[in-house]
Order: sequence, then C-alpha cells, then structure tokens
Amino acid sequence: MDKKQKTKLRGSGTKFPSELRSNTISNDWVIIATGRGKKPATFKKEKRKKIIPPKSNCPFCNIDKIGKTCLIFAKGRKTHGNKIPHNWTTIVIPNKYPALIPSCSLNEKADGFFRTMDGVGYHEVVVFHDHQKSFALFSVKELEEVITAYQDRYLELMKKSFTKYISIFHNHGQDAGASIFHPHSQILAVPVMDPDLNLAISNSKKYFEQNKKCVYCGMNEWEQDKKERIVFENKEFLVLCPFVSKSAFEMIITPKKHMHCFERINGTEKLHLAVALKEALFRLYKALNDPPYNFYIHTSPVNSGNYDFYHWHLTILPKTATWAGFELSTGIEISTIEPEKAAQYLRKQ
Amino acid sequence: MDKKQKTKLRGSGTKFPSELRSNTISNDWVIIATGRGKKPATFKKEKRKKIIPPKSNCPFCNIDKIGKTCLIFAKGRKTHGNKIPHNWTTIVIPNKYPALIPSCSLNEKADGFFRTMDGVGYHEVVVFHDHQKSFALFSVKELEEVITAYQDRYLELMKKSFTKYISIFHNHGQDAGASIFHPHSQILAVPVMDPDLNLAISNSKKYFEQNKKCVYCGMNEWEQDKKERIVFENKEFLVLCPFVSKSAFEMIITPKKHMHCFERINGTEKLHLAVALKEALFRLYKALNDPPYNFYIHTSPVNSGNYDFYHWHLTILPKTATWAGFELSTGIEISTIEPEKAAQYLRKQ
Repeated sequence: MDKKQKTKLRGSGTKFPSELRSNTISNDWVIIATGRGKKPATFKKEKRKKIIPPKSNCPFCNIDKIGKTCLIFAKGRKTHGNKIPHNWTTIVIPNKYPALIPSCSLNEKADGFFRTMDGVGYHEVVVFHDHQKSFALFSVKELEEVITAYQDRYLELMKKSFTKYISIFHNHGQDAGASIFHPHSQILAVPVMDPDLNLAISNSKKYFEQNKKCVYCGMNEWEQDKKERIVFENKEFLVLCPFVSKSAFEMIITPKKHMHCFERINGTEKLHLAVALKEALFRLYKALNDPPYNFYIHTSPVNSGNYDFYHWHLTILPKTATWAGFELSTGIEISTIEPEKAAQYLRKQ
Repeated sequence: MDKKQKTKLRGSGTKFPSELRSNTISNDWVIIATGRGKKPATFKKEKRKKIIPPKSNCPFCNIDKIGKTCLIFAKGRKTHGNKIPHNWTTIVIPNKYPALIPSCSLNEKADGFFRTMDGVGYHEVVVFHDHQKSFALFSVKELEEVITAYQDRYLELMKKSFTKYISIFHNHGQDAGASIFHPHSQILAVPVMDPDLNLAISNSKKYFEQNKKCVYCGMNEWEQDKKERIVFENKEFLVLCPFVSKSAFEMIITPKKHMHCFERINGTEKLHLAVALKEALFRLYKALNDPPYNFYIHTSPVNSGNYDFYHWHLTILPKTATWAGFELSTGIEISTIEPEKAAQYLRKQ
C-alpha cells in the first residue's frame, strides 16, 4: 500500500484499515478488508445479465411429465394423490439427478487410508409454479407455503433410516450454482456429519455447559443492544449482518426465542419467518440489484440426542466475491465491507 | 431418480451410483456423485470466453510505476536494487490493495462475543513479465523461477513478527477469482491459524504418534501401489487425483520423500517440482480446454514448534463446479467424476 492510500484510509479516524474477526461458534476467522473494499452503493452497479430461458425447455414448467411427487400444494393448500393438478402452486419431487439415493444398506468400508460408504440418502427439489418470479418478489403467503413445504419434507425425511442431517437450501442465480433458472430449493438427507457442522454443535454445547445459556441467545441480546448490525426484526425473528461475515452483505435470520431445531416452528413463527425472509431478500434485491445468493438452514442433527443447547438459524450468503486460492487454502474469508455498513445500507432500502 | 435412469446407472455393474468418501486428515466428506456426472471428455466442451485485455491498462505491464519491490529477477537471475530493469522476468511487489498490512501491534481484543485483532500481515504479488502466457504454457525454467520467488519470499516473511502461517496461491481465470488477467500469484503472511488448518495439523500429528509414520507418506505408498489415481511422477514428486477429491479433476503434487515444509526444498527438488507442476497444469489445460483453477501450497505453520509429522503439498483445484447451498451449509463437496477416471483422462493427455 502506498503512503497516499494509507493516509486516505486512515483519514477518517485511527481505525486500522483491515480487521480480523473470529467466530465464537465455528472458530473461523474472517478478514474485514475495508481498505480493499467498495462503498455499499458501488456493489449495486455490477452488471447482471438476466437471460430468461423459455418455458418450453424448462423441466419445472413441464412438471406433469414427472413421475413421482412427494408433496403438492394447489391454490395454496396441501393436496393428496399423485396426479398434479393444473393449479399447483408448490411441488416437491425427487431430484432427477440425485447426489444421494435411497438404499437399505450403507455398505460402509475402509478403502486403504480412507472410509467410504454408498451415497445413501434423499435428494428432493421444491419447485414453485412461477417460472421467473424471484424469491425476493414472493408474497409473504407464498414464502409461508415454501417454508411449510420445507418443514413437511423435513419431518418426513427425518424418519428415514441413516439420516444424520437434513440440509435445506436455495440457490438463486447461475453464479450461485442454480443450474435451472426456474425458482426451486433443494433438500438433502445425508447419512454423515461433516466436521464443520460437528464443530458448531460441540462449541455451542461447550458454551452452554460453561455459561448455562445458549450462545446464540446471548449474541442475539448483544446484537439487539448494539443495534448496528440489525437489518430488520419482528416479534419472532432478527435479521442481521453477522459480526463475522464471510461475505459482503451476508445476513442471518435467527429466532428470538431459544429453539434448537427448525422443524418444530409453529404457525405464528412460520408467518414471522416468512415476513423476515421476505424483508431480507427484498432488501438484498434492491440494494445489490438482484444478486446471486445462496440461503440455507442450520439446524440440529437428526438423531435421538439432546441438542437443546443449539439454536437454529437461516444464513443468506450473497455471491459478492469469488472465494479463491487464499480462502480455499486457509479457510479465512475476506469480506470487503464492514457488516455494520452493510446492515445500515440494507436498512435504508 | 426414475426407474429407467437407475437401471442405466446400475447397468454397468453393481456399483452404487454415488459414493461418500472421507478424508483421513481433514475428516471432510465428499460425495462422488457419478450418477449426476459427465464423462471426462464432456468437461472439455465447456465454452470459455477468452478476452485478453489490452496491455495499456494492465497494472503489471506498467510495473515501472510501482514504488517498492520485494524481489526482482532479470533474465532469469535474481538482481538487487530497487530500480526495475527493462528485461525483468519475475517481480514481487506489495499488493496495492492489501488484505493485511504490516504493523508493530496486533491490538487484540474481545468485542462482545467475539475476538478481533488488527488485520496485520503481509500481502505480496508475484508477477511474471508475459501479459498473457498461462502457467500451463510456461517452460520448466520459468516455473522454477516462480517457485524460487515463492521460496525466497517465504523465507523472508517467516521472519516477520506475528506471522503464523504463509499462504502461497495462484488464481487462474476470472471464474477462479483472478481479478487481473496478467498472470500473477499471491503470498499472504497471516497472524492466525484457521481451524481447518489446525485440524489437518492435529490429525497428522495424531496419526504420526499412533503409527510412527507420516500419514501422507503412507498414502503416497498406497497410491504408488494402486497406481490408478497417479497422473504423473518423477524422482521427487507424485501428481495424483486425490481419493477424496473436492472437485472434478482436483490434483495434488506431493513430495515422495518425507518433508514437512515447502521452504526447505533444494535445487534438485525445485527442478522436479517445476516439472511436476508443468505436467499437471499442461495436462489440465489440454484436458479441460484451459479451465479456471486455483493452486495453493499447504505447509507447516510458522513458529518454533516441531512439525516433522506433517508433509507439505500443493493442491490444484480446477473450477469445475460452483459450490452452492449444499456445500456451503454442510461442508460436503460434490464431485461429478471419480478421481480414478479423471486421473486416467489426465494421463492420456
């Protein structure tokens, strides 16, 4: 960095132009490199090609050719039977190209230095009837239906043999990994727990045992006291830009009441979650000109254990940067805007 | 998955169309989802826009405007002095937009629920004189110079206060995060260790203590015995597609002799590493039509500890897929080709 730049960066105060922040739960470090960063408004200017592929080639617009269905909503109500009514609104189907496949045996084995097992599990797709309406433009009622579909399938998949974790996620935009344009989410029931998930669980447990309090509840109180990173809140949920943001404009939606698992949300909570999700996604849509993003739910593992020390939440990760050699090799992400400034900008939308 | 597809997938044998594999060192799981996958040859067909930006706007083609330099090679030889000769071949300069900045204090503090410190460290760029020659097309001599530059700067940066880890990496192509087209690598000296790196270190130590043997040496012997994942080998190095590949066509280059840190490679080893790197990158270039990729070195942390149980290596991660909601939420990556088939295809190039 040359002298001029350093002076400029330091000009607004004595703050060091780059900060390392550590996440209490994952132990991860991020670099908030504001010296490299852009102002919030410059993120919006990024050009986005929006090519809407024709409905005629869309597998989800021609869904009546699909064989098996797992769940159907028509005119906003759950229906029964396998025949897809013409007025369907949300449908859940098995993924045509599944990453995991049902089986009655895991076939675990040691292969030299490694452990392997068959890729056993469930891979489903949650599809919405509108070919091109982005989640950010969904009504609260439509988002409530989406969340109900997630919950219904979760409750069903958690009963299946071998399920250790259920991942619910939504990819928006090609750059965020959505290979089909038509809005859809995915649900995977997985027979293993990855060390990253295990670490978050064990660190939450450790904190709970030491402090007789959930770490997320503590953080939520702290954030509500500080206010600077809160984007939106209602009676049940907080939407905030996390103190240790892995990417610019990351948001998490977290229940205000302590609640270790997603699948037990009741009707009121579901409505409030739909409102919070709508607020978060719509603000992001306006702030960054409909950016690609991923959102996913982090909830307790599926087994008979007691996970009351954990606190479920939903993370929205806009694709505001490409994680490259540094992030891939060290696990340290670089974010180019302070979460405090991102939250301020999102609040204004 | 419909019945027809299942039959098709199962048709070639009794192999389950998806396999979970666990990495002994990181404990990470990957899904080798061949049922979703493509044949090796189809990866090549992906269209790649190759737009070469003009030299006039290139900061590295106008490097004489740069102030400070850290290292200069001219006509393949290290030179001294700050003036950049016209016949420079490789140059190392401080990053103009550094993620980390030198300072005499870390300023560590607890901020509510979190730990923070100033983003203290070094961020350098290794630049090569040719504006558009991809690393895959470098001569062995040119790559040797690159590796020498890495090693020289590593040896210098490891002496700096607060350095806990030095990350050396190269991003090729915009989709792999290279923001400037002109070939360059980066070196970051970081004041913290991320849990992912710590886990790899502690698992290697555990294995060493239990087996009185380095886990990587064991794996290398196993791979040399199996042969199916080896892409190339010479006297000093193995190039292989790892059994637990996080992405299609991932490769690692690992020293055959036990060696815990990169910075101590001698002249012969450097030459053999240059040959192995050239072989790996050129085969990837031909196999996948010059794909975007990241490569990075994993080596021992920088401190006075004994890390003789560790084994340094270089990972090449082609950007053959976008890690989306599932990968981001669970830490489980999905690869769409068996490393055995990828290695076979790369061997043929």
